[in-house]
Amino acid sequence: MEVAIIGLVAGALTSFGFVPQIVRGLKTKKMEDVSYYMPAILAIGMSLWLFYGLLRHDIAIVTANIFGTACNIVIVAMKRRYEKRKSH
Amino acid sequence: MEVAIIGLVAGALTSFGFVPQIVRGLKTKKMEDVSYYMPAILAIGMSLWLFYGLLRHDIAIVTANIFGTACNIVIVAMKRRYEKRKSH
Repeated sequence: MEVAIIGLVAGALTSFGFVPQIVRGLKTKKMEDVSYYMPAILAIGMSLWLFYGLLRHDIAIVTANIFGTACNIVIVAMKRRYEKRKSH
Repeated sequence: MEVAIIGLVAGALTSFGFVPQIVRGLKTKKMEDVSYYMPAILAIGMSLWLFYGLLRHDIAIVTANIFGTACNIVIVAMKRRYEKRKSH
């Protein structure tokens, strides 16, 4: 029981941890210093964790990685958009 | 067995995914667009995952989060250093 709570708190942090990056990007409309590969690799990795969590019936891993995958896809999309705008 | 392999691949991606950000930072000596809170929250979250993995005897979670925690601490330290330099 306590173990599950630790997993849920950990999952909440590693999911919502990406939100400040999205907020900062939306404010500044800049993501130049953010590496493209970081959110791209993390999105793939987190979707694999999601799959792993489903196979192991581990709800903490599943919930954490649904949101984290989505956040990283958003960061990739934002970076793409801002870089494109710059090149015009 | 296959499940463990999926976990190890997922863990490798979500750990090494932070390396390109460190490399980019080292090259450009800039981390302005990277939110402070992202690596800070992720470092706390990943160290909790590490603890969770130990409690659940899950080697994939443990190994993934040792390296990931370290990477995020490095990113926080780099950001701190580069911001300091800028303010001089």
